Amino acid sequence: MTPPEPRRRSASAHLAILEATWEEVVEKGYAGLTVEGIAARAGVGKQTVYRWWPSKAAVLLEALNARTAQTSDFPDTGDIAADLAGQITGVAEFLASDGGVVFKALLAGAQSDPELAEDIRRQVIEPRTQACADRLAKAQAAGELRADVDPVDIVELVYAPLYYRLILGTRPISAPDMRHQLDRVLAGLRA
Amino acid sequence: MTPPEPRRRSASAHLAILEATWEEVVEKGYAGLTVEGIAARAGVGKQTVYRWWPSKAAVLLEALNARTAQTSDFPDTGDIAADLAGQITGVAEFLASDGGVVFKALLAGAQSDPELAEDIRRQVIEPRTQACADRLAKAQAAGELRADVDPVDIVELVYAPLYYRLILGTRPISAPDMRHQLDRVLAGLRA
Repeated sequence: MTPPEPRRRSASAHLAILEATWEEVVEKGYAGLTVEGIAARAGVGKQTVYRWWPSKAAVLLEALNARTAQTSDFPDTGDIAADLAGQITGVAEFLASDGGVVFKALLAGAQSDPELAEDIRRQVIEPRTQACADRLAKAQAAGELRADVDPVDIVELVYAPLYYRLILGTRPISAPDMRHQLDRVLAGLRA
Repeated sequence: MTPPEPRRRSASAHLAILEATWEEVVEKGYAGLTVEGIAARAGVGKQTVYRWWPSKAAVLLEALNARTAQTSDFPDTGDIAADLAGQITGVAEFLASDGGVVFKALLAGAQSDPELAEDIRRQVIEPRTQACADRLAKAQAAGELRADVDPVDIVELVYAPLYYRLILGTRPISAPDMRHQLDRVLAGLRA
């Protein structure tokens, strides 16, 4: 029997690197994030980081995605307003915490890095947009929402106020505020 | 009579610097923007730039504000839907052009520069938000819109989709799309 240690050691180094990346960027910002710093905090060599990720942006993106996985499941209880309210509460709480700091850092980095911008869209935004749009399409089919609006447009209306506050910093992101804004959006979309 | 030349020369240098800043940032991005580059393109010395502005961010912010002044007047024809549609068309066209490139660059810079973030809010976002909120409050008083929603919340609902596309780059900003989104927001806000 081959001993399982190497694979186990590898998985735990992978997790340690994702955790270290998160802590480094929260502490130092995107500009202060380096592969050296990540490796040192994770207790691995730089080459171990580069074995799995080509850049600090790539590892940060995976760290973000790993943390948000559970806030992105779209439940289907048959009540679209309740399901969206639960969803937006989770995302608001995430973005009001260190998650917002990390996501803002990534978006800022993406403005001068088109490849990172594309990776964020493909790995973070699009899968969640699609999951939400699928749930919205069911609500349209069930007669809960107007069927003449592209579900992707609805996703934009529902989530845009979160990004507005995240990026402009006009007001803090709070789950109750975001649920109020959701109610107003849904009021215009009833079937 | 004192000859007016020094003041005239000064005003024209001021304008030349704002123009040069705009062109530099569109061409080179925020990271590539330097006071040296601005001064060289404007045909002035670096000290002339520093006489009026403490940093590249400060001059860029004024350059942006100068360009957007005319897209930010809030008309009052008594028809809130028409007035907002006109307004959002102007902002969408601005952000779909070089204006969006410049604004994105500033917002990215602001993520690692809290003072710049505060200046953007105070000089760009808040005056326009207030002007729009004042117009919305009149529409509420006139019975055009529900009076139980904070006008600042309505500003957020109306403009957030623009920023969503600007920052995430999910879809291009187009004036017709943005007017459709506006219609849906207003449908939920009718008195």
